[in-house]
Amino acid sequence: MAVATQTLEELCINSIRFLAIDAVEKAKSGHPGLPMGAAPMAFVLWDRFLRYNPKNPKWFNRDRFVLSAGHGSMLHYALLYLTGFDSVSIEDIKQFRQWESRTPGHPENFMTAGVEVTTGPLGQGIANGVGLAIAEAHLAAKFNKPDAKIVDHYTYVILGDGCNMEGVSGEACSYAGHLGLGKLIALYDDNHISIDGSTDIAFTEDVSKRFEAYGWHVLHVQDGNTDLEGIAKAIEEAKSVTDKPSFIKVTTTIGYGSPNKANTAGVHGAALGGDEVKLTRENLGWEHEPFVVPEDALKHWRKAIERGANYEAEWNKTFDTYKGKYAQEAAEFERYISGKLADGWDKVLPTYTPEDKALATRKHSETCLNKLAAVLPELIGGSADLTHSNLTEIKGFGDFQKGHYQNRNIHFGVREHGMGAICNGMSLHRSGLIPYGATFLIFTDYMRAAIRLSALSHGGVIWVMTHDSIGQGEDGPTHQPIETLASLRAIPQLTVIRPADGNETSGAYKVAIEKAKQHAPTLLAFTRQNVPNLAGTSIEGVTKGGYTVVDSEGTPELILIGTGSELSLCVTAAEKLTSEGKKVRVVSLPSWELFEAQDAAYKESILPKAVTKRLSVEAGSSLGWHKYVGTEGDTVSIDRFGASAPGGVCLEKFGFSVDNVLAKAKQLLG
Amino acid sequence: MAVATQTLEELCINSIRFLAIDAVEKAKSGHPGLPMGAAPMAFVLWDRFLRYNPKNPKWFNRDRFVLSAGHGSMLHYALLYLTGFDSVSIEDIKQFRQWESRTPGHPENFMTAGVEVTTGPLGQGIANGVGLAIAEAHLAAKFNKPDAKIVDHYTYVILGDGCNMEGVSGEACSYAGHLGLGKLIALYDDNHISIDGSTDIAFTEDVSKRFEAYGWHVLHVQDGNTDLEGIAKAIEEAKSVTDKPSFIKVTTTIGYGSPNKANTAGVHGAALGGDEVKLTRENLGWEHEPFVVPEDALKHWRKAIERGANYEAEWNKTFDTYKGKYAQEAAEFERYISGKLADGWDKVLPTYTPEDKALATRKHSETCLNKLAAVLPELIGGSADLTHSNLTEIKGFGDFQKGHYQNRNIHFGVREHGMGAICNGMSLHRSGLIPYGATFLIFTDYMRAAIRLSALSHGGVIWVMTHDSIGQGEDGPTHQPIETLASLRAIPQLTVIRPADGNETSGAYKVAIEKAKQHAPTLLAFTRQNVPNLAGTSIEGVTKGGYTVVDSEGTPELILIGTGSELSLCVTAAEKLTSEGKKVRVVSLPSWELFEAQDAAYKESILPKAVTKRLSVEAGSSLGWHKYVGTEGDTVSIDRFGASAPGGVCLEKFGFSVDNVLAKAKQLLG
Repeated sequence: MAVATQTLEELCINSIRFLAIDAVEKAKSGHPGLPMGAAPMAFVLWDRFLRYNPKNPKWFNRDRFVLSAGHGSMLHYALLYLTGFDSVSIEDIKQFRQWESRTPGHPENFMTAGVEVTTGPLGQGIANGVGLAIAEAHLAAKFNKPDAKIVDHYTYVILGDGCNMEGVSGEACSYAGHLGLGKLIALYDDNHISIDGSTDIAFTEDVSKRFEAYGWHVLHVQDGNTDLEGIAKAIEEAKSVTDKPSFIKVTTTIGYGSPNKANTAGVHGAALGGDEVKLTRENLGWEHEPFVVPEDALKHWRKAIERGANYEAEWNKTFDTYKGKYAQEAAEFERYISGKLADGWDKVLPTYTPEDKALATRKHSETCLNKLAAVLPELIGGSADLTHSNLTEIKGFGDFQKGHYQNRNIHFGVREHGMGAICNGMSLHRSGLIPYGATFLIFTDYMRAAIRLSALSHGGVIWVMTHDSIGQGEDGPTHQPIETLASLRAIPQLTVIRPADGNETSGAYKVAIEKAKQHAPTLLAFTRQNVPNLAGTSIEGVTKGGYTVVDSEGTPELILIGTGSELSLCVTAAEKLTSEGKKVRVVSLPSWELFEAQDAAYKESILPKAVTKRLSVEAGSSLGWHKYVGTEGDTVSIDRFGASAPGGVCLEKFGFSVDNVLAKAKQLLG
Repeated sequence: MAVATQTLEELCINSIRFLAIDAVEKAKSGHPGLPMGAAPMAFVLWDRFLRYNPKNPKWFNRDRFVLSAGHGSMLHYALLYLTGFDSVSIEDIKQFRQWESRTPGHPENFMTAGVEVTTGPLGQGIANGVGLAIAEAHLAAKFNKPDAKIVDHYTYVILGDGCNMEGVSGEACSYAGHLGLGKLIALYDDNHISIDGSTDIAFTEDVSKRFEAYGWHVLHVQDGNTDLEGIAKAIEEAKSVTDKPSFIKVTTTIGYGSPNKANTAGVHGAALGGDEVKLTRENLGWEHEPFVVPEDALKHWRKAIERGANYEAEWNKTFDTYKGKYAQEAAEFERYISGKLADGWDKVLPTYTPEDKALATRKHSETCLNKLAAVLPELIGGSADLTHSNLTEIKGFGDFQKGHYQNRNIHFGVREHGMGAICNGMSLHRSGLIPYGATFLIFTDYMRAAIRLSALSHGGVIWVMTHDSIGQGEDGPTHQPIETLASLRAIPQLTVIRPADGNETSGAYKVAIEKAKQHAPTLLAFTRQNVPNLAGTSIEGVTKGGYTVVDSEGTPELILIGTGSELSLCVTAAEKLTSEGKKVRVVSLPSWELFEAQDAAYKESILPKAVTKRLSVEAGSSLGWHKYVGTEGDTVSIDRFGASAPGGVCLEKFGFSVDNVLAKAKQLLG
């Protein structure tokens, strides 16, 4: 590379590179992923194609940009700074990867305006991108009119080798191909290096051919380092194909510009080091001090501000036209965007009495979903190929398919992890949609990384999980959750609810819908088997996480604490004990997180410290229950794998029977 | 289909179908997956190709057969019965999916001899198959001689649409293509139906083209229902290609033979029902009573017994020759197969004193792995593209690559889930190999389903997990485990160990290696950051799960319980408190599972009930700790997501400091 006068474009591209180099060098941090090779494609994309408004990062109709290769986060921060977002100043860049900075190690949407989703765990970003594109396609089909397109944007994703190796990206991209999401454009930073070295040691498949097999429109830019026109032409072509997502392989050199470290894993996993930084400056003809962007370059980049204002103004005009002609739709659209719920939505949630038929809570869930779907058109989702087991179909709202994007039943296929990341993307589109994703509770194991990210990145998703215990039955231990509830309760910012009957299922949905609008996920655990409707259960009780369902006269001698299908065992056991003169309280504890969020007085009123004889009954692991039963209490729980047999047999054999609850209760009572 | 006289082959195939139909009908079970379309390929494979010995299911050199579409388990049980395995009688088949039967809902290797791996969770079986093929390739490269091939078998897998939709299968198959595993042959039961209906609703990619992109040899049998010669020819061709795994798409009709339910999701999710069974009997000309196999068919099937005895006798001869010529290798091979460890293997585990340099436990892990690798040649594994962060390279033993299968460092690529399932397959090859798989602790979320299956299916795998807390640092909350330890401790039959220093790391490996040989998995959690070597830690202590590291004179007033990097905080705090006249004990609790396995007296000696002032210190979720600290104790823990900053800053800010431990301790002491 000659140290000749640089073109303005080269200056702009090198601005990205050296902001990243300088930030990484200052942070001296282990795994920054220097965006040397990806800088040209990012420049072309952000400078010529991406529609966004730096001064209003949340402008609705912006193109969504996802850096799936999140370890290159400095690329994103440099772009935000250069194009004039207020969220990233040069001071923020100097604080790269430091405590409470707006430039954390990986892009986090809740830390930095302009970052759409939280990436870092590889493969998630591209799968989120599929969700963003689904959200756009759905809203466009629902709201747009021939004379006023108010939803009309692209979703661009930059992903790397790591993303392409992860199964979650394969699942989501196969599905994106099926759906023909034409406004999803992925740029693959094909640099042949991952942390362990050349991708030749583990990853020699033909990635482009794989995407062709998925049904994508596939392109290749041979020289991603310098061929800016080639990159631009590819993006143009990608935009021109409207019935398929596009995959642009952009072959680049990792660490481009570094004389000794380019094309090595050294630039993937560590800072360049002072000497090499100096050599790279010389090599690329960069004579500016650290963190200094030459004025010409910054001036060019900052044209984004005016462009962005124009995009938004133009859209506002379109929306005004729309509002004038389609007042009702516009009002609905505005409600969506505002994140508000339709008035009186929760009135549709049914309540039950003990006279009502015993049903599986998954069946009550079906009722709630269908009633809610009628009043909340933003409710959209489906199952990972278990629709008629999870009972998640919302009837009359059609299947979301290519050409039918206005429909609301999504068939994710047997792709739990992809489903999870797609739901996250749909929520993080932040257009009011309430996505839900369903499978058997045990298969949260397949999608746990995505569930965690829904909690971390403020995704307002409802996770609908059925077959929530050994009551699952014949499918056997591979399909029976044991430790699953405990492992999900451990995730911060995730609310787990295991309702006991019809009323509690309604309560669970009340919480889940409200939390979704507050950008928090809820995981609902439903039974496969029928359970009776109990006296004393209530929607309100569920909102508090724990409450008294049956009480004794005076201070109880014993508290039975149940969740889900086991609450009825507690109620029956309590009746028996009461008839024998014992003072027994039954507490329903459908959600630990909601209960913990109550004040101390309320918690004491439900579980008084003085009552130390406590027995929990839940068809799951005992892990965590000691917090509630204390050192003098006991649990009816299961700490081994299940077995294949009819569900009732499994429950009985593993001790989830009134007799066993009574036996353990009497042991405690002495 | 004409109800004409059936050929012997048709009789044999229909024997599978009707055993399955009758078993499913009797069980009236929800999700049996009737193997009507897969029966012909299974017949051709088992009757003409598969080498096995029904009377010695564990004969070493058998071909491995995996039913990845495990919901069709009756296919496998029928094959085992028909070919004469003692594990499945006709009575067992009548007990399909019943309590403690040998014919559970999904194939479970620990329940039924002849089943190699536990399938059911989709995609796992084919990925296990990759592991089985890796084990074969490695052992063949290591042991075979030009004049005596003692390791020489195929791995056959039948998989379905569901398996092909799951990301884990994509990861493993991409890697199998990279490795060129020529003796892996997958038969894809392409029936176009999954639970939700036609695969057209979610899965329209070109699967064969995808496998071509992975580097597989791809074939297609157009009529898998009746073209037995076509199936046979394809398998022959697959065997003839030795440098690539083969993928045979076999197009079939789900529910073949059922006049009204063939080619519908109805046969995927439910029994046919009495009327349809009758019609199917008529349609296929099956005049036999339920559970009756015509004599001719059974006679033909049972030829497998003689064939199997011959295979084994032949192999025994080969092995005798081998033993005569290569006594040392034969002895080693026999040790492998016996599952015994090399004498004195644990002598290599290092011990340390406080004078030894403070190092990260991942660094101690590297030392252990390398020392063990020298004395245990069966130790083989690697990382999911984090080799130099996990420090899992065993130096001098080369990279396991195509043409270099004798080597022992496996580069799994960024494919955590695939790695997990592959390691399970390698262990379940049951040839003495001790596989290990490594990534960051947080990314166990990506591979949790495989970790669970290692525990359930008795996989002797060592899971090497580093960067085990917020001490991870700059990568931020997406990379910092919070709830991860708790969620792993919840898994039955999995031993989790979080060692505090060099001695405890040696102890952790001592346990992990022994457990691997007992077919149980261990998960090791190591620090990124340096930790001091502590007085009082020991290998033996770790084997008990919990032990006293620092004791007070007389009964302690307070017990500090630490794990991993936080144990040293406890020790320092105890020193300070002791100097202030307090009686403080420090307990190291590196493994809850090992501690719980001790007798009551031992547990009481370490954590006496009378001492109720207890403080746990662990940089992870508080979930589960109340069991040890009780209602009067407290925890130093973290129940929120982490943050991006240098690891030391994170630990300090989140309260993992001597000062905070002291403050909380003093609060307890009052």
